[in-house]
Amino acid sequence: MAQLRLGISGLGRGAMLTVPGLAANARIELVAGFDPSREPRLGLRRAYGVRAYESFEDLIAHPGLDAVYIASPHGHHASQAIAAARAGKHVLVEKPMAVSIAEARAMADAAAESGTCLMVGPSHGFDGPVSLAADIIASGNIGRARMIQAFNYTDFLLRPRRPEELDRERGGGVVLSQATHQIDIVRRLAGSKVRSIRAQLFDWDTERPADGAFSAFLFFENGATATLGYSGYAHYDSDALLGWIGEMGRPKARETHARARSRLAGTDEAAQKQARGFAGPASNTAEPPVAHEHFGFVLASCEQADVELTTSGVILHGDTSREELAAPLPETRRTNIGEAFAACVLDGEAPIFDGAWGLHTLACCHAILRSGDEGREVMLDEIVSESH
Amino acid sequence: MAQLRLGISGLGRGAMLTVPGLAANARIELVAGFDPSREPRLGLRRAYGVRAYESFEDLIAHPGLDAVYIASPHGHHASQAIAAARAGKHVLVEKPMAVSIAEARAMADAAAESGTCLMVGPSHGFDGPVSLAADIIASGNIGRARMIQAFNYTDFLLRPRRPEELDRERGGGVVLSQATHQIDIVRRLAGSKVRSIRAQLFDWDTERPADGAFSAFLFFENGATATLGYSGYAHYDSDALLGWIGEMGRPKARETHARARSRLAGTDEAAQKQARGFAGPASNTAEPPVAHEHFGFVLASCEQADVELTTSGVILHGDTSREELAAPLPETRRTNIGEAFAACVLDGEAPIFDGAWGLHTLACCHAILRSGDEGREVMLDEIVSESH
Ligand SMILES: NC(=O)c1ccc[n+]([C@@H]2O[C@H](COP(=O)([O-])OP(=O)(O)OC[C@H]3O[C@@H](n4cnc5c(N)ncnc54)[C@H](O)[C@@H]3O)[C@@H](O)[C@H]2O)c1
Ligand SMILES: NC(=O)c1ccc[n+]([C@@H]2O[C@H](COP(=O)([O-])OP(=O)(O)OC[C@H]3O[C@@H](n4cnc5c(N)ncnc54)[C@H](O)[C@@H]3O)[C@@H](O)[C@H]2O)c1
Repeated sequence: MAQLRLGISGLGRGAMLTVPGLAANARIELVAGFDPSREPRLGLRRAYGVRAYESFEDLIAHPGLDAVYIASPHGHHASQAIAAARAGKHVLVEKPMAVSIAEARAMADAAAESGTCLMVGPSHGFDGPVSLAADIIASGNIGRARMIQAFNYTDFLLRPRRPEELDRERGGGVVLSQATHQIDIVRRLAGSKVRSIRAQLFDWDTERPADGAFSAFLFFENGATATLGYSGYAHYDSDALLGWIGEMGRPKARETHARARSRLAGTDEAAQKQARGFAGPASNTAEPPVAHEHFGFVLASCEQADVELTTSGVILHGDTSREELAAPLPETRRTNIGEAFAACVLDGEAPIFDGAWGLHTLACCHAILRSGDEGREVMLDEIVSESH
Repeated sequence: MAQLRLGISGLGRGAMLTVPGLAANARIELVAGFDPSREPRLGLRRAYGVRAYESFEDLIAHPGLDAVYIASPHGHHASQAIAAARAGKHVLVEKPMAVSIAEARAMADAAAESGTCLMVGPSHGFDGPVSLAADIIASGNIGRARMIQAFNYTDFLLRPRRPEELDRERGGGVVLSQATHQIDIVRRLAGSKVRSIRAQLFDWDTERPADGAFSAFLFFENGATATLGYSGYAHYDSDALLGWIGEMGRPKARETHARARSRLAGTDEAAQKQARGFAGPASNTAEPPVAHEHFGFVLASCEQADVELTTSGVILHGDTSREELAAPLPETRRTNIGEAFAACVLDGEAPIFDGAWGLHTLACCHAILRSGDEGREVMLDEIVSESH
């Protein structure tokens, strides 16, 4: 069986969540990592017994390396993905694909020139129930998707953060980090690209200034629409609508939001953030999921049925019946990422979440930001063409 | 105690739901009714022992009549309200206030000229939890309302309907009949008038053509926003999010939507519709409510807390706590309507839901229709000024 020798750049929270699903794949061999910080390097060695380099160049030069999973902070995605592609390495890059559209385009161009795979994610667009719902809609059996609702009320802004995660200029705030998930989900369900967006941005916590909430109205090229709502202010918790299963597919305490501010107060935020990655005790990532990951409440109204996403699959609310369909639950979280990436690299199968996909989702994020700033509907064409 | 002698015009479903709350008021005396159809007239006599006339003129001429509750089909609201005002009668007119803005303006003018009360409703903007939430927000204790979500997934389109209820030209479809409720709710919570609306309309059931669903993004003058979602296609049922308490504040069977189409099939729809008013067995209206009426999921994010509306009151999701507050439940449904109307007529207290309020809500409905038709954001000023 052909093998894909994989290196990891950036050994923080994102890597912690995704590496198990990559490493669980029989065709993927985790061979090395890189992080500028010492603690995460030690953590990777502890967890996987592989070498962690002190520079990205050294990682890329690791003997026999085929591909790299880039889980560094947003601002490093582009330079690392481009360097990797130029060195002939395949790339799986975390969401958001990049901070600017120009960066995203350069990444896609570099991969195309070198003939390497470029896959973006994982986002919650990969979640099993999303795939199941997208397949059902694509079958045509329940008519076209017309009106999609997606909202998520989280504690994103009150979890420990790096300074750049709160700074819009460096891709911070909830739009690039979080809207990305919702956009990927509704794009899959709508089965179309977005034509225009009208949005509003909110920054209402004076003690933690950032884009902390937004709502957005997406108009797809095929006539479908989606309304997105998101708040990261740790007040209402939409996991209440998902049986108190949290984003990661695990049971969640109802007091989580009410405790968010005290958990954060008076601590070293950078250390707290680091402890959630490979530098930390790696607490829960290895435990098998009890339910699917999710990104809040999602309901897609099609012409003949409404499709409700749950943490076990979907519920089809049809003309005369209500039908629950399960999506198969992997033994290890995010194994589908490994499968899709291996299929691209080893079998030449184009991934759904390729560079063009990631670029369009990023353009949607920028359309949300611009629409919120300028108080008007923004065409996607406008965002994409001006960055040429 | 001063008395208000009240007549009822239109003895259908709307009247059935509201008359008990009017008649329960010690200061209101129900004295007569009118309906062009015989069965509802007999029903009113059976239920309240009062005379029901065969013409609106006769009702208005009823000796000693002070006021009229107009619960006739939308298209008759304006002519009846204007005739009543000119005869010096106070008016409570059902939602939507009228079909056109010009009609609504003429109604408000007629009431102003005659110095009579003009109150619009009841809509779900009167519901106890909405009032409680609006009061909490208006207190300023949790900051300004910024981002409101309101959605409702019902079987509106699959319930028995008069032909004009499905015909946009005559005010049919879900916008005038149903968006009115959501607009009244979010206006109360936002505490502001609406500046502009971007919306989308859906008409996806070929067997029952009508505006059956919509989504809308409302921008308020004070910077708050609301996203509204509504489907009347009897697929998903958002009462699932409200503990299976239905719109009228009573327990609801989970199969309601799945049965909607078979209930309607092969029956005389007009007769079925009539049986839901005073012509019918008047089944449930007298029973005391077990919970508040509601209009689906409503969540208002303010600067320091999210306010979730429930069927018993509100939940305040604050920085460090989650607090449930009950709204007092009346013994008879909608007694607050009677109180507000009596307070206007007898005490000269201006109602919240006056003619200007109703006109603005109606203008919002027209902005939704136009935005959906023209695919652009519509300013409220544009709608209101062109009807001058
Ligand atoms: N898909 C998901 O579920 C998910 C979850 C969390 C984060 N992410 C994404 O992962 C990326 C990292 O976010 P995070 O939350 O893991 O942050 P983090 O702070 O937890 O981890 C970032 C790590 O990158 C290291 N780093 C700093 N500069 C680097 C560089 N130039 N090259 C490589 N590593 C570098 C830091 O030392 C740190 O260990 C972001 O793009 C984020 O959007 C995705
Ligand atoms: N607030 C609410 O909860 C609520 C609920 C239902 C209806 N409504 C409103 O009530 C109004 C009536 O709707 P409905 O559902 O009761 O309809 P309906 O068909 O149940 O009843 C309408 C009644 O009006 C009678 N009618 C016809 N022409 C009339 C006229 N010119 N003058 C007086 N009566 C006339 C009909 O014979 C019928 O009995 C509508 O404006 C609707 O929006 C409000």
